[in-house]
Amino acid sequence: MRKKIYLLTPGPTPIIEDVLLEMARPILHHRTPQFSAIIEEVKKGLQYLFQTKNDVLILNASGTGAMEGSVSNLFSSGDSVIVINGGKFGERWTEICRSYGLNVKEISVEWGKAVDPSIVRDILKRDKGIKGVFVQASETSTTVTHPVKELAEIVRDIDDTILVVDGISAVGVFDLPMDKWGIDVLVSGAQKGLMLPPGLSFVGLSDKGWRFSEDADLPRYYFDFRKERDNLRANTTAYTPAISLIVGLRKVLQDIREEGIETIFARHERLAMATRAGIVALGLRLLAPDSPSNGVTGFFLPDGVDGGRFARFLRDDLGIIMAGGQGHLKGKILRIAHMGYIGIFDIIVAISGLEMALKRFGYNVEFGKGIAAVQEILFMEMSDEGTGK
Amino acid sequence: MRKKIYLLTPGPTPIIEDVLLEMARPILHHRTPQFSAIIEEVKKGLQYLFQTKNDVLILNASGTGAMEGSVSNLFSSGDSVIVINGGKFGERWTEICRSYGLNVKEISVEWGKAVDPSIVRDILKRDKGIKGVFVQASETSTTVTHPVKELAEIVRDIDDTILVVDGISAVGVFDLPMDKWGIDVLVSGAQKGLMLPPGLSFVGLSDKGWRFSEDADLPRYYFDFRKERDNLRANTTAYTPAISLIVGLRKVLQDIREEGIETIFARHERLAMATRAGIVALGLRLLAPDSPSNGVTGFFLPDGVDGGRFARFLRDDLGIIMAGGQGHLKGKILRIAHMGYIGIFDIIVAISGLEMALKRFGYNVEFGKGIAAVQEILFMEMSDEGTGK
Repeated sequence: MRKKIYLLTPGPTPIIEDVLLEMARPILHHRTPQFSAIIEEVKKGLQYLFQTKNDVLILNASGTGAMEGSVSNLFSSGDSVIVINGGKFGERWTEICRSYGLNVKEISVEWGKAVDPSIVRDILKRDKGIKGVFVQASETSTTVTHPVKELAEIVRDIDDTILVVDGISAVGVFDLPMDKWGIDVLVSGAQKGLMLPPGLSFVGLSDKGWRFSEDADLPRYYFDFRKERDNLRANTTAYTPAISLIVGLRKVLQDIREEGIETIFARHERLAMATRAGIVALGLRLLAPDSPSNGVTGFFLPDGVDGGRFARFLRDDLGIIMAGGQGHLKGKILRIAHMGYIGIFDIIVAISGLEMALKRFGYNVEFGKGIAAVQEILFMEMSDEGTGK
Repeated sequence: MRKKIYLLTPGPTPIIEDVLLEMARPILHHRTPQFSAIIEEVKKGLQYLFQTKNDVLILNASGTGAMEGSVSNLFSSGDSVIVINGGKFGERWTEICRSYGLNVKEISVEWGKAVDPSIVRDILKRDKGIKGVFVQASETSTTVTHPVKELAEIVRDIDDTILVVDGISAVGVFDLPMDKWGIDVLVSGAQKGLMLPPGLSFVGLSDKGWRFSEDADLPRYYFDFRKERDNLRANTTAYTPAISLIVGLRKVLQDIREEGIETIFARHERLAMATRAGIVALGLRLLAPDSPSNGVTGFFLPDGVDGGRFARFLRDDLGIIMAGGQGHLKGKILRIAHMGYIGIFDIIVAISGLEMALKRFGYNVEFGKGIAAVQEILFMEMSDEGTGK
């Protein structure tokens, strides 16, 4: 039979059926009042989601495009910056910064751990010339959350330094209030908490961030933030936008506002807790036990299990698509995403599939044990309403 | 959040995504060579599914329409027939037969039990004037399978009697080889094992069945089988067909042929076994323990649980749609369908949801116990292939 597919990867994430239908409608032209009205609505929805009064730019590019723009628009050749590198996406900040000739001071963080903010504070105290601090809110490769709030507290009082946060797998998943915390640059993408096909990225800038953009001398054209801002204010985009995706985005943002971000964050936290409880109950070791992301949970496979083979078995035999490990974790870990359009039964499917696959690979599993742990967490939040109690 | 919906009712059943897309294509006109080619392909697919060399008619009506046609086309006013009535759909045979002035001898069967074929044999021996025996292959309301093979053995040697089988929730679910067993009339519908939206019904007739149609004097027009057969042979339909559904049907029949009916029947059997094992492990009582249908499993709710409220809780709080009881079982039982586009994780979702809902309603449930029983059954069939063992 056609296998039902359970997409549990940290991007793309499942897409709400009504959004798929919305994007299947006949294409609009982008230089029309009709499309401008959509942009106008989307702008407000993004400000709600990013928790900012400032513009949130919409770029027709994957998240890496918005990351690159956050370097090329805000810094000048030879600027010194700190990159917190605790995984593949920390590495990416370094690569982009170096491509543009910045002087990168890397803070290497063990994969699976979060950065200690006091290290950043100490460097910034010692070295007054640091222009930016780059970090991931959720380092997808290691399933870690870095302490963005604490970093923002350190950076916001320093006039000549901005905090640039990769929120690609964090925005819409857990709380990152830009204005309240003082995040200067917050980047996100379409295919994570925003539950869209890939193709769009977003970037919000603080007033300090926009001030930085005035002095920056790095070359840029497609990712010119000021040009995009001016167009956005006129309810349009500088270049041809990904029209269908923006039509889908409007629908997603309507849904997000209807559910409310607090409810959304609480839902992700509950699903994350349930997933972690299921993994631990199976006797498996979490990749990031101390500061796990609420968007994705990583865990080590038992010794002797070939991770690539195991992930293929889950995918091809059971229809469950999890993500493997990257870099030196390749073949050793799996990652279950629980971001976006994911419900409690997706977690039950993930853990029950894991139980059966582990047993098939010779690991001693007591069926139902992981699931029971998941159910305990999910049950706590289940309302009595309607039960007659 | 938008709840994911798990449709586990015995019709409609979930629809394969590719079939949905196929049906969303621009509408065709039905009096075209293009549509005739579709009918030609669909005819062959239906013969494969019904396991017959004879024509399988396609009616633009729900299953009840094909049931009515099976009365009005094959019998004459005042004919005596046996109806095996062990549930809502047995009752329906009686209602239709009586609406057309047939003389119905009902064999009442306790709900949850199958008919004893020797009772039918004895009546047919005693009363030589009986023209037809009506039965359900799967009595959806009681989740019972009646012994069609044994009934066919009894009826096929009697020249003046035909066996009329309601296979609406059975065709494509378990084995009902028309020609091999000697079923004279086999009825089915779109929204069960055929995994389509409701709107079509199908009926296959044996040579004996067609012979009966020549003497029948009951009035009929829309459901005139001979007219439909003649049109079908010309690759068309007597009246405007449900074009999109037939376009979807082509796709479904391609899928069915690709998977192969033996594999499909084995899959349904496995899912049914797993569901029953889960229910029993939870300490619940099966509605039809002795002759259960492989398409749907019924079970009694614990005493004191209000079935209507419980089903609403499953639906509105958990997104799981099961069917309640009909007639005197209303409020006392639930039915989980596992027919058509249903996979192993649908059963896991059903049983895990049931565990949580039962606990929420105050029933003492050990989380994971029902699921573990499900997993044991499903695991047995899981291949070692790809595990490296």
